[in-house]
Amino acid sequence: MSDERAVPRAFTVGERREMTRTVTPRDVAAFADLTGDRNPVHLDPAFAATTRFGRPIAHGMLVASLFSGIMGQQLPGPGTIYLGQKLRFLAPVFVGAEVTVSVEIIEIKEKGRATLRTLASSDGKVVIDGDAEVLLPKT
Amino acid sequence: MSDERAVPRAFTVGERREMTRTVTPRDVAAFADLTGDRNPVHLDPAFAATTRFGRPIAHGMLVASLFSGIMGQQLPGPGTIYLGQKLRFLAPVFVGAEVTVSVEIIEIKEKGRATLRTLASSDGKVVIDGDAEVLLPKT
Repeated sequence: MSDERAVPRAFTVGERREMTRTVTPRDVAAFADLTGDRNPVHLDPAFAATTRFGRPIAHGMLVASLFSGIMGQQLPGPGTIYLGQKLRFLAPVFVGAEVTVSVEIIEIKEKGRATLRTLASSDGKVVIDGDAEVLLPKT
Repeated sequence: MSDERAVPRAFTVGERREMTRTVTPRDVAAFADLTGDRNPVHLDPAFAATTRFGRPIAHGMLVASLFSGIMGQQLPGPGTIYLGQKLRFLAPVFVGAEVTVSVEIIEIKEKGRATLRTLASSDGKVVIDGDAEVLLPKT
């Protein structure tokens, strides 16, 4: 049986991966179904029109969950264990907008731990800033 | 046109809501589809058997997203704006296990801001500890 963790992999500070995707109405509906969060600011254009944003915005945790996607697939990759996440939601991601999310290794610590900078931007501005603590996949 | 935000609602420190649900294989698969996070520690029992956990665990951000569900629906409720979230993933939630997530108002600040304690527990122990910063719905 192969053990994917046995593939040697060295990590270095400064390694970074990013991904750009559109947050669709379908994504937002799927997240609402999954979490039970049917806050009308995300789902109801008439309600959203009465808010500071003027139109529906994606759930912050949906956008933040894309960091998990990069971490689990690309950097650090399969086998990564998530230990912590800090998030600041600075601006909305409108439903239908493109968002670019990135993960960068900013510190490698003892016992296989690392700190990653997690950033999301949309429409030319940072929408989420934060950092993650992970246990790197075994090398 | 009705404005749901116009409904008077006073918030007090100590208000708390919780929700218990089972995290199903279907939930984990849906979250993997939504975020692109196909880390085998969540999806592949053979791989998970080689890890410290021994069996598939739910994505940490899936469980943490349930806080968003309580906040958007119950406390503080519809119209809540998420400003920040800190999370410590302390122990795994196994796929198929029950998890109880809770949100409690621990501080009400100026300009409609509040800090909420966000906790998740499964199998008798705390699995996620953290707190959220929100803008309360207008009263």
